[in-house]
Amino acid sequence: MRFSPLLEQLIESLRCLPGVGPKTAQRMAMQLLTRGRENGKRLAERLLEAMEQIRHCAMCRIFSEHELCEICASKTRDASTLCIVENAIDVTVLEQTSTYRGKYFVLLGRLSPLDGIGPQEIGINQLKARFDLHEIKEVILATNPTVEGEATAHYISELAKPYKIKVTRIAHGVPIGSELEYIDSSTLAHALAGREVI
Amino acid sequence: MRFSPLLEQLIESLRCLPGVGPKTAQRMAMQLLTRGRENGKRLAERLLEAMEQIRHCAMCRIFSEHELCEICASKTRDASTLCIVENAIDVTVLEQTSTYRGKYFVLLGRLSPLDGIGPQEIGINQLKARFDLHEIKEVILATNPTVEGEATAHYISELAKPYKIKVTRIAHGVPIGSELEYIDSSTLAHALAGREVI
Repeated sequence: MRFSPLLEQLIESLRCLPGVGPKTAQRMAMQLLTRGRENGKRLAERLLEAMEQIRHCAMCRIFSEHELCEICASKTRDASTLCIVENAIDVTVLEQTSTYRGKYFVLLGRLSPLDGIGPQEIGINQLKARFDLHEIKEVILATNPTVEGEATAHYISELAKPYKIKVTRIAHGVPIGSELEYIDSSTLAHALAGREVI
Repeated sequence: MRFSPLLEQLIESLRCLPGVGPKTAQRMAMQLLTRGRENGKRLAERLLEAMEQIRHCAMCRIFSEHELCEICASKTRDASTLCIVENAIDVTVLEQTSTYRGKYFVLLGRLSPLDGIGPQEIGINQLKARFDLHEIKEVILATNPTVEGEATAHYISELAKPYKIKVTRIAHGVPIGSELEYIDSSTLAHALAGREVI
């Protein structure tokens, strides 16, 4: 026996969420129906609202329902420093450090020609337009230290050259609080190469 | 920095799903916004539809948008046997065995006085009404083999006594395909006590 049609449809739709397989989707649907109908309705409304109204910030491409996001609209942030990240969530984690006062640009991806993701898809045209304003003095490349992330960083550093912008890359090395014996050799090699005089 | 208000609301709402913490909710929201807006909208619609239209089957309390579910409405199922389970999902797993041809009754919970779940909450009145029809010859108790599940089974068996209904409990023992060395002693004790002549 299968579930009733509406329930089957709900279970199937829940599977569009990342990490949700058939069993989890069943459990979610059951739990919502059993003791979460109000929550379920609210989720439905907010989901619809978000899917329809959230756009990208015109400056940095972060998700926002306004033309400009909070950071881009801020007068107190340093517009001469631009930190470039792959995902919107990276902005949140960087902001949690409370040490960066510049602005951001979100690529919403990384260069990955095999997946059909080229410069167009990661907003390079918009980034160039930012460079053309000649406001930016430093670009901090904070893409992920993966093959694609490094390639993307390299691509952007080449792009910035003609503008005489200082290009930096966030440091890679041993994470704070970890122990050397558990660190992979590639990270250790980076840590050695990037050693600093104290 | 926090996310934009709509995004914050969506993330908070996603946390009503079982097993979804703040990080998972963020990831879900981001993924839906990045490459699943159509899926997100469809999920919202189906969620709303399901929350508003899915009711309980008037006979067995399973989830259904119709007055009677498929099984209760069926003329070919044996109405003299009633299998009692805790959750709607248990019906699905029992149906997957393709060996049971009777009907079901879903408690939508188990007796748990400490959580305020008494006979009223698990539909005992409805179950009694079924017994009063004098159609049922056998009740199969398929509640979970937990303390609450056993207590619920015992309660229902007492309830069925005055009706002279045969009450059975599903067998507990070593699962098929497992190895004895990995079975806990409580299950093994059940398996020994429930041994059958071959």
